[in-house]
This record gives sequence, structure tokens and C-alpha cells, in this order.
Amino acid sequence: MKKHKIITLGEILMRLSPIRHKRFGQTTEYETYYGGAELNVASSLGNYGMNVSMVSVLPEHDIAEDALMHMRKFGIDTSNVLRKEGRLGLYFVEAPSMQRGGKVIYDRADSAFTQTEVDAFDWDAIFEGATWFHWSGITPAVSESAALITAKALEVAEAKGLKVSMDYNYRAKLWQWGKSHEEVMPALMEKCHVMSGIHPDVDVLNEEVTDLDFALSGKEMMAKYPNCEVVVFSSRGVKSANHHTWAGALFDGKKVYRTKKYELSHIVDRVGGGDAFMAGVIYGLHAFEGDLQQCIDFATAASAFKHGIDGDFNAVRKEEVMQMISSSDFSKVDR
Amino acid sequence: MKKHKIITLGEILMRLSPIRHKRFGQTTEYETYYGGAELNVASSLGNYGMNVSMVSVLPEHDIAEDALMHMRKFGIDTSNVLRKEGRLGLYFVEAPSMQRGGKVIYDRADSAFTQTEVDAFDWDAIFEGATWFHWSGITPAVSESAALITAKALEVAEAKGLKVSMDYNYRAKLWQWGKSHEEVMPALMEKCHVMSGIHPDVDVLNEEVTDLDFALSGKEMMAKYPNCEVVVFSSRGVKSANHHTWAGALFDGKKVYRTKKYELSHIVDRVGGGDAFMAGVIYGLHAFEGDLQQCIDFATAASAFKHGIDGDFNAVRKEEVMQMISSSDFSKVDR
Amino acid sequence: MKKHKIITLGEILMRLSPIRHKRFGQTTEYETYYGGAELNVASSLGNYGMNVSMVSVLPEHDIAEDALMHMRKFGIDTSNVLRKEGRLGLYFVEAPSMQRGGKVIYDRADSAFTQTEVDAFDWDAIFEGATWFHWSGITPAVSESAALITAKALEVAEAKGLKVSMDYNYRAKLWQWGKSHEEVMPALMEKCHVMSGIHPDVDVLNEEVTDLDFALSGKEMMAKYPNCEVVVFSSRGVKSANHHTWAGALFDGKKVYRTKKYELSHIVDRVGGGDAFMAGVIYGLHAFEGDLQQCIDFATAASAFKHGIDGDFNAVRKEEVMQMISSSDFSKVDR
Amino acid sequence: MKKHKIITLGEILMRLSPIRHKRFGQTTEYETYYGGAELNVASSLGNYGMNVSMVSVLPEHDIAEDALMHMRKFGIDTSNVLRKEGRLGLYFVEAPSMQRGGKVIYDRADSAFTQTEVDAFDWDAIFEGATWFHWSGITPAVSESAALITAKALEVAEAKGLKVSMDYNYRAKLWQWGKSHEEVMPALMEKCHVMSGIHPDVDVLNEEVTDLDFALSGKEMMAKYPNCEVVVFSSRGVKSANHHTWAGALFDGKKVYRTKKYELSHIVDRVGGGDAFMAGVIYGLHAFEGDLQQCIDFATAASAFKHGIDGDFNAVRKEEVMQMISSSDFSKVDR
Amino acid sequence: MKKHKIITLGEILMRLSPIRHKRFGQTTEYETYYGGAELNVASSLGNYGMNVSMVSVLPEHDIAEDALMHMRKFGIDTSNVLRKEGRLGLYFVEAPSMQRGGKVIYDRADSAFTQTEVDAFDWDAIFEGATWFHWSGITPAVSESAALITAKALEVAEAKGLKVSMDYNYRAKLWQWGKSHEEVMPALMEKCHVMSGIHPDVDVLNEEVTDLDFALSGKEMMAKYPNCEVVVFSSRGVKSANHHTWAGALFDGKKVYRTKKYELSHIVDRVGGGDAFMAGVIYGLHAFEGDLQQCIDFATAASAFKHGIDGDFNAVRKEEVMQMISSSDFSKVDR
Amino acid sequence: MKKHKIITLGEILMRLSPIRHKRFGQTTEYETYYGGAELNVASSLGNYGMNVSMVSVLPEHDIAEDALMHMRKFGIDTSNVLRKEGRLGLYFVEAPSMQRGGKVIYDRADSAFTQTEVDAFDWDAIFEGATWFHWSGITPAVSESAALITAKALEVAEAKGLKVSMDYNYRAKLWQWGKSHEEVMPALMEKCHVMSGIHPDVDVLNEEVTDLDFALSGKEMMAKYPNCEVVVFSSRGVKSANHHTWAGALFDGKKVYRTKKYELSHIVDRVGGGDAFMAGVIYGLHAFEGDLQQCIDFATAASAFKHGIDGDFNAVRKEEVMQMISSSDFSKVDR
Ligand SMILES: [Ca+2]
Ligand SMILES: [Ca+2]
Ligand SMILES: [Ca+2]
Ligand SMILES: [Ca+2]
Ligand SMILES: [Ca+2]
Ligand SMILES: [Ca+2]
Ligand SMILES: [Ca+2]
Ligand SMILES: [Ca+2]
Ligand SMILES: [Ca+2]
Ligand SMILES: [Ca+2]
Ligand SMILES: [Ca+2]
Ligand SMILES: [Ca+2]
Ligand code: NI
Ligand code: NI
Ligand code: NI
Ligand code: NI
Ligand code: NI
Ligand code: NI
Ligand code: NI
Ligand code: NI
Ligand code: NI
Ligand code: NI
Ligand code: NI
Ligand code: NI
Ligand code: NI
Ligand code: NI
Ligand code: NI
Ligand code: NI
Ligand code: NI
Ligand code: NI
Repeated sequence: MKKHKIITLGEILMRLSPIRHKRFGQTTEYETYYGGAELNVASSLGNYGMNVSMVSVLPEHDIAEDALMHMRKFGIDTSNVLRKEGRLGLYFVEAPSMQRGGKVIYDRADSAFTQTEVDAFDWDAIFEGATWFHWSGITPAVSESAALITAKALEVAEAKGLKVSMDYNYRAKLWQWGKSHEEVMPALMEKCHVMSGIHPDVDVLNEEVTDLDFALSGKEMMAKYPNCEVVVFSSRGVKSANHHTWAGALFDGKKVYRTKKYELSHIVDRVGGGDAFMAGVIYGLHAFEGDLQQCIDFATAASAFKHGIDGDFNAVRKEEVMQMISSSDFSKVDR
Repeated sequence: MKKHKIITLGEILMRLSPIRHKRFGQTTEYETYYGGAELNVASSLGNYGMNVSMVSVLPEHDIAEDALMHMRKFGIDTSNVLRKEGRLGLYFVEAPSMQRGGKVIYDRADSAFTQTEVDAFDWDAIFEGATWFHWSGITPAVSESAALITAKALEVAEAKGLKVSMDYNYRAKLWQWGKSHEEVMPALMEKCHVMSGIHPDVDVLNEEVTDLDFALSGKEMMAKYPNCEVVVFSSRGVKSANHHTWAGALFDGKKVYRTKKYELSHIVDRVGGGDAFMAGVIYGLHAFEGDLQQCIDFATAASAFKHGIDGDFNAVRKEEVMQMISSSDFSKVDR
Repeated sequence: MKKHKIITLGEILMRLSPIRHKRFGQTTEYETYYGGAELNVASSLGNYGMNVSMVSVLPEHDIAEDALMHMRKFGIDTSNVLRKEGRLGLYFVEAPSMQRGGKVIYDRADSAFTQTEVDAFDWDAIFEGATWFHWSGITPAVSESAALITAKALEVAEAKGLKVSMDYNYRAKLWQWGKSHEEVMPALMEKCHVMSGIHPDVDVLNEEVTDLDFALSGKEMMAKYPNCEVVVFSSRGVKSANHHTWAGALFDGKKVYRTKKYELSHIVDRVGGGDAFMAGVIYGLHAFEGDLQQCIDFATAASAFKHGIDGDFNAVRKEEVMQMISSSDFSKVDR
Repeated sequence: MKKHKIITLGEILMRLSPIRHKRFGQTTEYETYYGGAELNVASSLGNYGMNVSMVSVLPEHDIAEDALMHMRKFGIDTSNVLRKEGRLGLYFVEAPSMQRGGKVIYDRADSAFTQTEVDAFDWDAIFEGATWFHWSGITPAVSESAALITAKALEVAEAKGLKVSMDYNYRAKLWQWGKSHEEVMPALMEKCHVMSGIHPDVDVLNEEVTDLDFALSGKEMMAKYPNCEVVVFSSRGVKSANHHTWAGALFDGKKVYRTKKYELSHIVDRVGGGDAFMAGVIYGLHAFEGDLQQCIDFATAASAFKHGIDGDFNAVRKEEVMQMISSSDFSKVDR
Repeated sequence: MKKHKIITLGEILMRLSPIRHKRFGQTTEYETYYGGAELNVASSLGNYGMNVSMVSVLPEHDIAEDALMHMRKFGIDTSNVLRKEGRLGLYFVEAPSMQRGGKVIYDRADSAFTQTEVDAFDWDAIFEGATWFHWSGITPAVSESAALITAKALEVAEAKGLKVSMDYNYRAKLWQWGKSHEEVMPALMEKCHVMSGIHPDVDVLNEEVTDLDFALSGKEMMAKYPNCEVVVFSSRGVKSANHHTWAGALFDGKKVYRTKKYELSHIVDRVGGGDAFMAGVIYGLHAFEGDLQQCIDFATAASAFKHGIDGDFNAVRKEEVMQMISSSDFSKVDR
Repeated sequence: MKKHKIITLGEILMRLSPIRHKRFGQTTEYETYYGGAELNVASSLGNYGMNVSMVSVLPEHDIAEDALMHMRKFGIDTSNVLRKEGRLGLYFVEAPSMQRGGKVIYDRADSAFTQTEVDAFDWDAIFEGATWFHWSGITPAVSESAALITAKALEVAEAKGLKVSMDYNYRAKLWQWGKSHEEVMPALMEKCHVMSGIHPDVDVLNEEVTDLDFALSGKEMMAKYPNCEVVVFSSRGVKSANHHTWAGALFDGKKVYRTKKYELSHIVDRVGGGDAFMAGVIYGLHAFEGDLQQCIDFATAASAFKHGIDGDFNAVRKEEVMQMISSSDFSKVDR
């Protein structure tokens, strides 16, 4: 893989889920994970052996120390994580079951991250030697200062000639600080080269999405954001909370690359599936040297894998993802 | 909702299930719940915000205290629970898996409830201000005195003009005290207005049950029990222990109301599904003011919900049930 | 017991502790409890069979619903708990071990409770029929509005002639909103009749505290707060995190009542020990009709009991406390 | 060891204890064990490599099968366990803590064992080839038929010349069937050779029990029961629920044999401590060929060991007991 | 059932699996089981009430003691288990999920079993009174001495006229000691009468396997190994890791006996499924006295059952297997 | 702290302990940790913020990957960990209780580490820029090649002028490869500057160890190993498995530095206590710039801390250790 250094910006959260898939009203025990869209991307990249550093803010207590240790496990550089007074953002996740959807209770307001001053980071120093910057629509959603920090980072990234990737990650519950995502996001997206796209409006359980559907959607995006070079799409069909379909597509302005469609029955945990996909795209663009088919195959398989794993983080090795792509009899016991 | 006060009569049991779905011969750890058909109904009603009181008997030890605390959680009035020497009824439940059925080991013989004298309850006082009485076929099954207590309760309920609902709940293992259910139940059912009906003899996996099937079955019931105003039916098809179909029907003497059919794949725990259904009927008859379609839709959705939840009790809020009825894309994560 | 109705004011918190006494940096599983100084008092009072209602604020999500269910278990009236947007206050507790102290990470800033407007509660209605009001120094510490709400409550309580009890509960980490406890507390304490006192400055492991020590401290308090009728003291000696000594004293302006001294070796969880003590005082003042010796004996034994129980709440029955006071051979198995 | 075959008679129970030492009112998870005084003795004997068979009764369900499998683990012959309709006796055990005593809720009334007809066992066949019979005062306590079965067994044992050992095990809560232990036990004890004795009335925490004290108590017993050859005493001092002292004594009509006194601090579970002692006596009388000092040393050390182990059963190997007797620096890590 | 005594030879292993189906990189807790192909067969046979003894080798430490206790639970005779210095073989099993296969990390090299000298067992004594010998291809795979021990056992078995059954159980990772399975197995198989056969090369998800397919495969085997009387086949189709199809066939040289095809959706643990099948064959050949249809029906149902149970061992009773064969509505709750 | 780079050499092991302090014969669940004397030292150093790299060998499977991730958590550089075929060394630890000692079952023979060829490491490269080398007597014990590797490392370390520290860590069970520790260790120790010393032969529970005792022992060591500059001693008194005393001493050839004596009652886990001590010495020699009193105070407090923490690793921060040294009232809750 060519030389690279990837920077991500985002909040580090603690996730709490009732043990053994109980409901909130049934449990007195929670399992904890560290998560958040950008940390999930960073963890995957670190796990695949890439050089990645996360820009974030954590409070000064012992649980924040534990979060840092967790990040180091995956080889994520933590030297760009500021420590300051405040709280650690949390979110509570209740697992879905059959016709019942999953539930998320966000408890991330007023976290140390959202309260960070706009000039807290020295982006020139942070981007020194960096080649790629990744962010998602969650960061500008959480506070005005976070939105301004994102804008500042993108400005410096552009000045330094970094490639920029972005995951839209719209979360209605988060945009509370005054402006709407339609007001804020376009200016930020203008500086990006790789983006998650808006899936064509098709009922994927019952209809076929054509290459043309994807191409039209991708072209619309590129028209709006001229820096955009690659648009990636994931396509989810929901039969029940335990059974989805999953496929990916990539458009490079010229051609649509499609993947096989995965039947995801007996899903364990869908949270972080999109982050695993985006990390797969970033990895793929680096590792497969322009082979865009392999890139989107990797991203989609990695994300399919994630649905079978507890927690936000995609605990798989890149060799396992490669094997899933190539294998047809995927369910042998390896012994 | 109109003013109401609902009284239930029944035994309070402790359920023990091997942790993590192990078999009886594999476990040294059990999860406990409080259950029993009528308590399950009362818990749902309390949980939906209804005014409900349970008539029962518990021993005097600390675990019985815990059972009372559990009941209070749901807002069930416990002032009609007698305390006397004796044991707490138990039952052990082993989860099913694929082609293997679930197993129940009853250990409720000789409980304080079954040993209660016939005149232990002052029904005039208990029914003071009450509007509705609910019982099930489990209570007259467990002992002669329990059967006589049920008869006495029904007599006073009739005299006071209460509406009465009943769930047949036939359990072959329980009728051990001398008389059969055919000898005992008809006289009790004569005083009831809302009943669980006998499902038409149709293989629901492979055949369509027609409205006429339900109407015939309902009419037969009403002919036999002239006080009966509403008969409710649930219709279960069993593909495997983990995958059922589920639908409901209601007959009011004139018309058959049907619900959509739920595919219940990846079932977590079916115990208490029927109780959730009956509680939904009682709630629906109060809340939807004569809209019988909404009533049976609510009951059926509530019961479908229950199959995705560990334990006897249907840990859902009424808003969640309403949402499931109306939603088609039920499996979104709410975030 | 004479007729009474006790009102408490305070925040409802969720406590999270690493399972099996691990350190924060070692765990991925937490046990949860609901706690908070005033809720702990209310739970004990409800558990002893008293008529108690809690004034508080909770957010609108499912975990807050669970907190309400928890309160109802103990018979606490929840009709005075407001629901509003915001977060649930949390705190993380790490167990101590030998020479290592326990750790608390507060995460209660900006909770729904602290953000409540000053006039959110109709104290006239709340105190209708009430006989006693209990609060602690934690409430005025958490926000300016909470301090003002406390002041308002005390004003109405005085106007209505309620008896008022107070626990000073100084927590240095909490007083962050602008004023210090020395500025705020005295005006509030002026309206109180029963108070936790300042323990005489004696090394209880090595010195004897005399009756005179306690009387002097109590008199000083009464001089400063003329409404004060009863001052209660607890006396803790710390040999190690697992081994304390514990004793109580009560001063009524005339006489000092002392208890035996408990050796608390093999402590399980000291959090909530002071709350158990204060609840014991309130219960004792009601139940023992002026027998102040029995009152302080009960409070001290109840609190000793608490040290042997996991969680904030003192999960004991009043009969067990009475038995501990009278028994000398306390460690028999009852079988 | 000389050739032997030991027969025990007693009930097989399932014990349920709240996980992680919680109180009954705090738990929704129980750990289970199989126990009962005589099964505990049999398990120890089997574990020490002795030839032992248990006479008992179990119901026909899957949990009873699991109990049988449990017994076979220790090499206990189960061919004398009858199977019949009925329930499995249970008991719930809450762990003590500091000044709080342990709690036992018996739920063993009306078990299959207590309902067994008097002539259910063919004692001639059972005792064929047997050399020793062990029973305890728990069996005649649980029902009239169990008392009569015990009498019948003793009669045949005497006729066949077996040695008989007995543990008095008085449990006030159990003697409910009509006669008192004073009415029933003496006739049964007349046929016994080895007995648990009545400890001299001395406060062992503060006074020394003399050899004479034990000799007097033993002689009184032998005077009353002329077949008695050996009386064994255990001597427990209770500092707190977590800290006892423990010592043993044996009287053979001529001499008193004493053991060292164990400080049992940090006790894990005292239930079954007496059974471990009695099993140690039986093993010692067989293994040490008349060396009565070694016999009582072994029994007392084995029982001390038990206090450090969860559950009823003394999960130790005889080599470990021997090592504890001889070792002074008992707390090395063996590595 | 006719008189029989079955001898198995094989290694006893401890299996470790991450608790709650986590991945290796996610867990700090493992559940343990004792397993191994031949122990799994022996456990099933003991569990079905057969007379079975296992020839094996275990180290001398406490965990090996626990393994012996585990074997005794099922009634397996352990008198032929040697104890010697060395280690206990282990294997780590990670559960599969959807498109992800299961993983096994063997850690059984250099175990006490593999290091046993060729003449460690006195086969004449071991086979005294025996009627049947079972082994599998795993034993000759693990070391040269184990292969020679197998050869020696087969030689004596033949001399004494025992029936011999064999499961090929090819594990590529195990054949490391120098020779390949093609070099070693044929000479061993020559002495066998009942064998697992090579499934016809058919894609069972999409094609029908005909009786002729099985007959050709069986005849080829019998031509190669003239002692062979019965060849059994299992037929697995893999839709995903959680959903297989499963069917069995038996060829006796004349006729092919087929079973119904099981849809195994929601699989819990497939490890040991083949061992459950082979144990079912051995049981069936003894229990059904020449009814080969019943034999293969039993074996296939028993194995289907296993897929719904955690761990290597098939924790079912023979009555449950019989019931599954005969039942069409297999998913009733038995209450 | 002055610039430094510390290299350790040693085996990485997985430790398995029965959950909730059960005995080996009672558990089916194990908690796992990564440990080993030198890894424990490295983890502490990394945790204190030091620059540390570990030289070791791990197999190629997923559990070994997890071990590497664990190491990275603490900031240990893993670039000197070779990967090769073979197994991961394990050890099973059973917790002690009262008079019962702890048990360790080593299962580390034939691990990848012990099988590594003598010239596998390029010590010149590894020591490039390094200032300190730490090893322990466990490495030369496990295999001849490991002993030769240690010798080689020491040779290069001496050539490059590194400071060398050593912990004797004698484990009788480990020296199995042919030579005894007396034959091997002296030549290795000659190159060391900081050593664990032989505690004067005094019964620390009942006698005072004088400064002279320590000085004599230290001088003897320095006479034998002229490079030795510092000898450190820990002094443990064992009252029971749950209650030790603990103190430290340091001799620099001139003066004996002593610490206070800790009463360690309610010990949680003593394994790794010595490693925590040695890590504290190394940290102290770097951090306190010649203040040897502070150095030994830190090491002893850090080790005392370890006894209150589950697992091998001393999960404490250096600020906590400093606080324990200075604090007298160590058991306050920090809130
Ligand atoms: Ca729970
Ligand atoms: Ca996420
Ligand atoms: Ca188990
Ligand atoms: Ca039920
Ligand atoms: Ca953990
Ligand atoms: Ca508190
Ligand atoms: Ca619980
Ligand atoms: Ca017992
Ligand atoms: Ca974990
Ligand atoms: Ca196997
Ligand atoms: Ca267990
Ligand atoms: Ca170690
Ligand atoms: Ni789970
Ligand atoms: Ni699960
Ligand atoms: Ni899960
Ligand atoms: Ni589950
Ligand atoms: Ni378990
Ligand atoms: Ni479950
Ligand atoms: Ni623990
Ligand atoms: Ni604990
Ligand atoms: Ni504990
Ligand atoms: Ni605890
Ligand atoms: Ni514990
Ligand atoms: Ni404990
Ligand atoms: Ni325990
Ligand atoms: Ni599970
Ligand atoms: Ni599961
Ligand atoms: Ni499982
Ligand atoms: Ni513990
Ligand atoms: Ni522990």
C-alpha cells in the first residue's frame, strides 16, 4: 500500500447496551463499548494496519483513560486527543427483535467534545505529513463549535492538498444547536472527494435498482459538489430486525460498480454497519490501487461482516473480509 | 379512557429459566421472573396505565416480598394479596430450539394459593367500585378450593354487574384435583362476557381460515354461553420453535374482525404470548371505545411484540404497540 | 405509628458500578442501580412501610420509565415527579479495596433536574396533607435553580407547619454554580428541626468521644439554628476500606443518646450508609414515639446493615434491623 | 483402607442462592447446587474414594436427572434412588454479611421424598454387602413416613451388624409432622455407634473448653445410648458472619482427642460445614485404622476447608486436607 | 437391548468458547466444556443408558480430575483412563455468524495423550467382556504413537471378535506427525464393520441425491474394505452459518435407507453434530434389533437435535429423540 | 524524567481463572488475562508513561492477535514480538481462600516462545537507542534456547552499556530442561546492576528485620556480583491467604532504605505482586532522580496496591500510587 497518513475528527462515545439483549426496562447490567461513527472508522483502519490518528476531546477521568487505552489497542494514534474538563458522551442502545426496532437514547449533550473552543486544534500541525482526512455529518450536528471546527479542518485540509472523505450520517435527534443540516452541510461537502451518496428511491426488497439509478444519483451529487470524485452507496432492505439484505455500489463519474447482494439473516448488531462500510471504502481506495470493483466489494463485505458482531466496532481482520468475498461456501468450520 | 377498575384473580408464580438458553441438564444458573397467566395480564394492564388490582395469596417470606415489589413496579394494587403460611408456586422453563419444543416443569402443587380456604376473600369489599373482573382456566385447575373461590367471585361479580373476561388456558398437567375441566368450566363460563374462543380446526400454515370459520366458531360459543358478547381468537402457525405465524380475530356476534398476519421469526420467548393478547383485548375494549378493529389489532400486535421479549411479562409501552400497528418499516433504529 | 405523610425533594440518579468489583480500567460490564441521597432516604422509608412521596424531575425516555418503576417497588408515590426534556444524572462508582479508596465519577451536570425552572413545582399542592419534609445539601449544590427550589419548598413547608429534616451531605465536587455552601446553606437550615450534626473533631479509632463532646457540638448547632430540636451524629473510624467502625449519637438539647459501636469488617458497599442512617432517624422519630434511645439505635443499626449490601439502597426490612439491635449472636443461620 | 460399603439415607435437594451474594430482594439470578446433609456426606465420601451408595427418592423430570448426574460425578452409586411422581425439595440460601445472619427459605414440604411409602425400600437388599450406615436427624424430621423409614433401616442395619453413624442436625423449622424430636430421636439413636455430640455450654470466644467438659458430655451420651462408641464435637465461635473460630474434639469413652483451633476469617460459605466434618469422621475412622487423633484432625481440617468454598459440597481432595493439617505456612501459591 | 460392552479410544479435550458468542478478540470470559470426537460418542452412549468405557490418557492435575468427574456424570467407565505427566489437550472454538464461518484454534499438540507409549494399554484386559470397539480418524492423526496404539487395539479387537465402528473425521490441521491419512487409514479401516461413508459429490442445496448415488458410494467402500457391513452417510447443505439442511442415509450392501430432511434454522452450535450422528448409529444398531430404518432415523434426529444445543455434547435423552422422529408438530410447549 | 528506552524479554502468557473465585472442580467459566512476569513489568512501565518495548514470540492465531492488542493498550511497543508457528503458553490460577493456598497449573511447555531458535533476535537492532534491559529468572527456566537467548541479550546489553535489572523469580516447577537454576543463573546475574535480593531469614510476622539484616544480605549479593549497584527486598508475612503484611527495603551498598509496613487484609489477588514491585523499582530509579527512599516507597506502595486488584496486571496510575504513599486516611471516597 502506498504511503499514507489518515486523520479523522469526531467524538469518542461510550455505548451501553443491556446485557443479553434485554430491554431497558428489564436490565440491571450493561455491556459497554467505545464507539462513535468516526472512531468506528478509525478502529477499522487501524485494525487493517493503516496509519491513522484521531482528533478528539476527552475528559480527565479514569473512564476516559480507558477509552484511550481502547483506541491504542487498534493502533490508533491518540496524540491528537485533547483532555479537558467536562463529560464523556454516552449513548444507550437497546437491541431490536423481530418487528421491534432498536432504540438509541443519546446522552451526549454538553460533552467535553461539544464544548471545545473553535481554535483548540492546531490543524497545521495535525495535518503535517497527512494524506487523507475523514469526517462525518455527526460532528457538525452536535454543536456550533464542532461545526466550526469541522469547517476549519476542511479549510486547512484543502490548503494542504489532502484527499477528503465524508459520511453524511444524518441523525435527526442531533441537530439541535440552531442551524439545520441543509444550512450547514453543503459548504462543508464542497471540499470533499469521496462521499456517501443518496440511495435511489427504490424499495430494494421488491424492486431492482439499476445501474442507471445509481449513475443518476451520483451525477447529481458530482454536479453539486464538483470536487467529488467517488460516490459510494449502500443498499439495505429490511425484512425484519433480524433479517436484512445488503449490497453496495460505487460511482466514479463514469461507471457504476456493483456488488453481490448479501442475505443478512440472524443479525447480531447492525450499529456501526455504515461505519464499517465507509472504512472499507477508504481502505479499498488505498489498498487496491484503482481497482474500484475490489474496493466496493471489500467495503460491502466488511460491512456485512459487521452485522454479525456485537458492538460498534467491526472486529474482523482484512484477511477474513477477503476470504468472504472470494468464498462461496462461507460457513465451513476452519479446523 | 372511561373510568374503570379491573380485578384479576390468580396465582403469582416464580419462573426459573436456565441462563443463556441452556438446557436443564447444562446449567447451574437460573434467571428468575414472576409470572402466571393472570399476573401477566395484570402487569400489562398496569403497564398500559390502567387501574388494576390482583387478588391472590403469597407466603410470608422474603422472596414473596420481592414478588409484591415486582407487582408494585407495574402499578398493580397489592392490597388484595393475602399472606399466609405455605409455599410459593414455581415453574421451570427450558427454552425451545429449532425442532425441539420448550419444556415446563411445574412445581406449584401445594402452594399457599392452592391451599387457601374458600371463604378467605371478601368479594363484596374487593368488588366495591370495580367495573371488570378477569380470570383464567388455570385457577379452577389448581385445586378444588381455587375452583370454588372462582365460582364465588363470579357469583358476586354478576350480582354487582361487572363485566367479566375469561381466558380458557387449558393445561392438561394441572387438572389433578378430581374433576375435569369439562365438568367445571361451563358453569363458570356462563357468567362471562368476553372469552377466548376455540380456533377453527384449520392448518394455518397451509390453509386460509375464512371469516365464516371464525363466525361459526364464535356463534357456537355464544349459543352455549348466552352472556357472551365478544369472542377473541388467536391463530398460531408453527414452522419451528423459532419461527411462528401469528394473527388475531374477534367476533361480536355480528361481524368478524381480522388482523394482518405476523411472521415471527427469531422468536425470543413465546411464554406469556397468550396473556399479552388477552390483556390487549381488555385494554382495547376500554381504550378504543367500540372500535373493535383497533381492539383486535392492538391485542395481536401486543402479543407479537411479546414473542421478542425474554420472560413472561410483555415489557412494552402502549405507544410502542400503536407504532407497530401503524408502521410498515418497523425495523428502523430510532436515533 | 401516628398518621404522617413525608415529602422528599431530590435528584434521581442512575449509578453504574463495574461488575464484580473491577476497576474502571478493567471492566466492560456495569451493574446499575438507581440512587441519590434523597431517593435512598425515600426508598428506606417506603420500605419500612411509611407514606412517602418524592418531588423530582426525570427525562422522558425508557430508562427514566424504569427509574419510576423502581421507585414504585418501594411504595414511593411518584405523582410528584415531573417529566421534561433533558438527561438523567449518572454517577460511576468504583469499589475501594484495602488501602485504595473508592472512586466516584459524577456525570450529573446539566441533568433535567438541575435545569428545572424555579416555579416548576406547586408546593402548596404538594404539601397538602403532608406532615414532614426531608431534603439534603446535595440539592442546593447542583444548580442555582435547584437551590432556589429548595428555598421555596422550605418557605412553604414552614408556612404550613411541617417538620423539616436535613442531611448536610457536603460534596466538594458538586458546588459549581457560583455560590459556596457557606453562602447558601445557613438560610436554608434555619427552617429545619432535625439535622445531621458536625462530628466532634476526635480520632475515633484511637480516642473516646465523650457525651460532652457531642453535647457541645449539638448546642452550637442549636444556637445557630434556633428551630433545631434534634441533632444526629454518626461516627466512622476507618481502619481500611474494608473495615470501619460505626456508631451513632443523638442530642435533643438536653441529653446525649449513644449507641453501641459496630465493627464493620468485610464491608460490601459503604455508599448510601449515611442515607440509611438519616432514614432510620426519620423512621425512629415516628415509630418509637419519643423513645430517642430506640430511635438512634435503629438508625445506627440500619446504617451498619447497609454497609453489608451492594448498591445505594438499604435492602433490609425493619424487622431485621430490630433483630440486629437486640441480638448478640447475630450470625446464626436462620433455618 | 479396609473393605467397606457405606449406605446413606436422605433427601436430595436443590439449593438456590442469589448470584454474587445479593439479597433475595436484589436478585434475578440464582446459582444452583445439589445439597442436603446426607448427600453432602456422601459426596465427600465418594470424593475421598470411598464406596458409597445413597438411598433416596427423586421425581421423574429432567432436573432430577441432572441431580443424578451430579451424584455420579462423585462416584456415588445411584441404583438405590427411587423415582416417583412428586416434587424435588428445594431451599433458598441468602449469604450472610458482617452482622447480618444468613437466611434459609425451605421449600421442601411435600417433596417426593417425604411422600414415599414406608415400605418403598427393600433394606435387606440394600444392605447386602454393606458395612456402614449413615443417617441424620433431618430425615425423621421431614415426615412421618420418613421417620418410619429411618426406623426400619436402623432395625435391619442392626440385624445385619452394620456400624451406624448419626448427625443430630436439629432444624427447628422442619419438625412439623406431629411429633417432636425429643419423642422420635432417642429410639433411633439407640442403634448408633458414632454420634455428633452436644457441645459443652461454654462461650468459646471467651472461655477455654476443657477436656473434662468434653468427657462429661460424651459420657452422658454414652450412658443414654449404650451402643455409642465414639462421640464427636465441633466447636464454633462466631465473631461475625465472616469470621468464626473452629475446632473439633472426639471422645471414645476413654480419652478426649482435641484439634488445633482454626481462625476462619473471610468465610465464603458455611453451609455444609457440619456435613464436611461428619464425612471427615467417617473417612477418618476407616482410613487411619484406629488413630483417633488423625481422625478428628482430618474431620476438623476438612470442615475448615469447606468454609472457604461456595456451595454445600466440600470440593476438596483428601490430599489437600492432609496437607492443611501438616502445613504451617498454608498460604503459599503452589507454582 | 442385548448385552453389550462398548469400548472407545480417544483423546479427552477441554473446549473453550467465548461467552455469549463473542469473537476471540472481544472476550475476557470463556465457557468450558469437555469434548473430543470419541468422548462425544461415549457421552451420548452413556446418556442413552449403554455400557461404555473410554480408553484415554489424562494428566494428574485438578482440571483433569474435573474431566473425569464430567465423564462419570454420563455413566462412562473411567477405569481405563491412564494418568501421566503432561498437558491436557485444549481447543478454542469461536461461534460462526451468518456468512462468517466458525473458527477452531487447536492447542492439543504435545498432550499427555499424544505422548503415550505404544504399549501403555493392556488391550487384552481392556477388551475382556467387550462386544464393540469405536474409534475415529482423529486418533491416528495426532501422533505416531497414537496411530500405533490404534493399530494395536484393532488387532486385538479383531482377534477377540469385536464389532468395530469408525468415523473418518478428517481434520487437515491435525495430520502433522509425518505420514498422511491416505498412508495410514486404509490398513486401520480394514478391520471395521461400520463406517462413515463419503457423501456423493452432489450440491445438496440444489440437487437431489438419489438412492443410487448412495448405493454406489457404499459399494465402493465395501469393495475396498471387505469387512464393512454398514456405511452411514450424513448430508449437510449450508445456507448460512445459522441455517443448514441435514439428512442421513445408511447402506447395508443391499438397500439404501433414507431419512427425512431437516431444516436447521437458528443453529446454536454445530460442533459435535457428526459425533451425535455416529453415536446414534451405534445406539440404533443395538436398540432396534436390525430395523435399519429406525437406526438411521434415530441417528439423524439425534444429530439434528445436537445443532440446537451449546457445547460438544448432545444433551438429550433417547425419549426426546424418539419423540422428534415421530412428531410432526414438534414445537409445542409441553405443559 | 530523563530520556530512556526500556527493553524487556519474556514470554507472553494467557492466564485463566475460574470466574467468581470458584475452584477448578466447580467452574465452567474462566476469566482470561494476559500475564507473565516480564509482561507485567512492561505493562506497569507503559502504564506509568515510560517508553518500553517487549521482546517476545507469539503464535499466528487470533488469540495471539488479541494479546498484541492488549499490549498496545498500555503503550508497549510490539514491534519486537516475533510471530511463528506454535502454541501460546497458558496458566490456570485458582484463587486461595483462608487456610487454602492458591493453585497454579502451568500449561506453557512447548510454547512458541520456548521453541524459538537462539539467533531469532537481532539484539544489536533491538538495543539501538535503548538505555535499560529487564529480564527475570523465568525466561532461562523455560527452555535451553530461552536461556541461551537471555545470555546473548545480556552480552549485547553489556557491550552497549545498558543498565540491567533482574528479578530472580524462582519457580521450581519450571526448571525442567536439564540444568538447574544454580548452574545457569550466576553467569547471567553477573551482568546486572539492579536485583531482587534474598530476604533475610526472619519470621516477619513475629520478628523485626533489622537494617543490618538487609545490609548483610545485600552485601553478600554485591560481593558475588560486582556489577550490582542496587538490591531490593520485599518482605511478606502470611497470616492467611486473605491477609498478608508487606514491606520493602533497598540497599545501595551504603545504606538501607526501609518502607512502612502494609497490612494487606482482604487481599483480592496476589499474583503479579512481585512484578508490580519490580516495575515500581525501575520507575522509581528513573523518576525520582536518585531519591532512593522515594523509589522504594513507590515500589512497595505500587505492589501493595496490586494485591487489591484482580488479574496479573497492576491497573493503577502513578498518581494513585503517589497518593497512597502520602495519605494516611487512604479510604475516603473521592467525591
Ligand atoms: Ca435484571
Ligand atoms: Ca456509530
Ligand atoms: Ca454448568
Ligand atoms: Ca404464563
Ligand atoms: Ca471485562
Ligand atoms: Ca448516595
Ligand atoms: Ca439483578
Ligand atoms: Ca446441608
Ligand atoms: Ca471483554
Ligand atoms: Ca468434536
Ligand atoms: Ca459452574
Ligand atoms: Ca506473574
Ligand atoms: Ni448475547
Ligand atoms: Ni444472543
Ligand atoms: Ni449479543
Ligand atoms: Ni439469546
Ligand atoms: Ni454458568
Ligand atoms: Ni434470552
Ligand atoms: Ni469477585
Ligand atoms: Ni462480589
Ligand atoms: Ni466480593
Ligand atoms: Ni458486589
Ligand atoms: Ni463473589
Ligand atoms: Ni465474594
Ligand atoms: Ni461466591
Ligand atoms: Ni447465547
Ligand atoms: Ni444466543
Ligand atoms: Ni450459546
Ligand atoms: Ni470476591
Ligand atoms: Ni475477583
